[in-house]
Amino acid sequence: MKKYNFNAGPSMLPREVIEATADACLDFEGSGLSLMEISHRAKNFQPVVDKAVELVKELLDLPAGYSVVFLAGGASTEFCRVPYNFLEKKAAYLNTGTWAKKAMKEAKLFGEVVEVASSAEDNYTYIPKNFTIPADADYLHITTNNTIFGTEMRYDLDSPVPLIADMSSDIFSRPVDVSKYNCIYAGAQKNVSMAGVNIVIVKDEALNKVSRQIPTMLDYMTHVKNGSMFNTPPVVPIYCAMKNLEWVKKNGGVEAMAQRAKERADMLYTEIERNKLFRGTAKAEDRSYMNICFVMNDEYKELEADFLQFATERGMVGIKGHRSVGGFRASCYNAQTIEGVQALIQSMKDFEAQH
Amino acid sequence: MKKYNFNAGPSMLPREVIEATADACLDFEGSGLSLMEISHRAKNFQPVVDKAVELVKELLDLPAGYSVVFLAGGASTEFCRVPYNFLEKKAAYLNTGTWAKKAMKEAKLFGEVVEVASSAEDNYTYIPKNFTIPADADYLHITTNNTIFGTEMRYDLDSPVPLIADMSSDIFSRPVDVSKYNCIYAGAQKNVSMAGVNIVIVKDEALNKVSRQIPTMLDYMTHVKNGSMFNTPPVVPIYCAMKNLEWVKKNGGVEAMAQRAKERADMLYTEIERNKLFRGTAKAEDRSYMNICFVMNDEYKELEADFLQFATERGMVGIKGHRSVGGFRASCYNAQTIEGVQALIQSMKDFEAQH
Repeated sequence: MKKYNFNAGPSMLPREVIEATADACLDFEGSGLSLMEISHRAKNFQPVVDKAVELVKELLDLPAGYSVVFLAGGASTEFCRVPYNFLEKKAAYLNTGTWAKKAMKEAKLFGEVVEVASSAEDNYTYIPKNFTIPADADYLHITTNNTIFGTEMRYDLDSPVPLIADMSSDIFSRPVDVSKYNCIYAGAQKNVSMAGVNIVIVKDEALNKVSRQIPTMLDYMTHVKNGSMFNTPPVVPIYCAMKNLEWVKKNGGVEAMAQRAKERADMLYTEIERNKLFRGTAKAEDRSYMNICFVMNDEYKELEADFLQFATERGMVGIKGHRSVGGFRASCYNAQTIEGVQALIQSMKDFEAQH
Repeated sequence: MKKYNFNAGPSMLPREVIEATADACLDFEGSGLSLMEISHRAKNFQPVVDKAVELVKELLDLPAGYSVVFLAGGASTEFCRVPYNFLEKKAAYLNTGTWAKKAMKEAKLFGEVVEVASSAEDNYTYIPKNFTIPADADYLHITTNNTIFGTEMRYDLDSPVPLIADMSSDIFSRPVDVSKYNCIYAGAQKNVSMAGVNIVIVKDEALNKVSRQIPTMLDYMTHVKNGSMFNTPPVVPIYCAMKNLEWVKKNGGVEAMAQRAKERADMLYTEIERNKLFRGTAKAEDRSYMNICFVMNDEYKELEADFLQFATERGMVGIKGHRSVGGFRASCYNAQTIEGVQALIQSMKDFEAQH
């Protein structure tokens, strides 16, 4: 049976990216060696890293003065690396969900943290607006897409202080005005690669501004200076990221990804609104294109487990909602297909017809 | 042409481990999904982590009260995580080379660091002995195998304080008395897996003993409590590690690995001593079984580039020595074959015959 992968992360990748990576694991570019057993300093691997960096710069139209590095440890490690590198006295954080809160928690170890706004009281169903950003903050940290709650900021905030963004789950899904950010980071396993690599974009002149000593591996400058090669980087995940970024470029870049994301999300939200069994959980204006969250309407609540089974039997994978929201979540990152979304919608229609 | 992989890291893996990992990247256990795109919380991935942990415990005969976690960021990140977690006032470090020095550098950010001995003045050609370990140190840090300089401590030191060891390049190559250690860590890309995962073994009761606050991802307790699943772990590198540990077990465990390592190293060192062109760089009693370092004898120095080319043309890969030592380095981790070592020896003999 054909599987439709709606996993929230690690998540669906284009089949050609999967196959190219598996091929390279057997024989890397005809070298007679596996990608898994070549040196990261091999002459044929440096072009992989260079290409990946170049593609990030091209796809997001990076202004001059920004560096791209590939690190490890997941976005959770960046939650700590960000304040280590950028928080001198005070930082502002926008609390839009679980991951934003976790980022804030780490920042508190390094200085004063101002929560500029929060939608916690409404279980993070919306993105707060019209909040005041302290002009003396070192930065404002935002989480552009909230994987668990299905909300997304598909815009670059106007802010009196530089932005820092966790874009783990929507990077490369739309154009971004990078000039507004001192740092953009993303765990790759949602929209870029297999798990095991982080993409970090930093404004060079924002580095080396804090007075504390930073452990070598936590200092972004270490990695900028060494082109992600200070120590052994995650070779295979970087290769996979490079192939996927090539795929994004070949398929029209981030503008085309945004168009496809809108198309998929519109189809699904339209069905959720039409179908008598379901309702969306996030406020319409802040709904994510990446993670479409929905629950059973109150009068059909007892059908939740049945629908999960029904959809699973038709090939849907990973549509169970996060426990904080319940219900269902269809993650539709760049690699998600219209066919997959149609299959899910058909399941919803067919299930409705039975009830 | 058949390639013989002597890379120092990332390095040779058993072909069956490579193929099993590539297969799983195409279709993970018949699930219809790639290992690269399944959730780390999927029901079929938890057994992979559990199996990997169990194999580490079994292969190294871990006493009760130790935990095994899979982290990311390379041993270089553990250089910082170790003092963050274990250094309250004073730590002792044995300086046996580049990596030991780097570990020491990070520790200095957290407390007093005593260098108990160093072989720096002799370019790290030996392992210091008969040094005094301060009885009030929180731990003694050692680097059991020095990849760059080709020295190895194939014994578990007697120490008045707990040991902490970077075993990145010789873990699972011999039995270890884990009870002497509060922590053993290893970047996996030398003897265990592809790059992208660290294996960390910690004594549970040694955790939570320092007074400082530790950022969440740097706190070993975070990962112990969450079974390496606090955040998304590097799924594919962990799978590869698990398959490789299975291979180690199937091939006789660490006792058999030690025997094979000795056999390979004895063959190579014997040839280095016999061959008029070459000489070893490390003191005989401290020579590594993992990284066999040798240079041209002074009178043949001008032949260095020629031999490198000669051997490369016969399929040897990665035998150029590190710039700190020069000459050649044949890395012979667990997956290295007798056939590979014989091919290198034959190249040395043939080259000698020409001169």
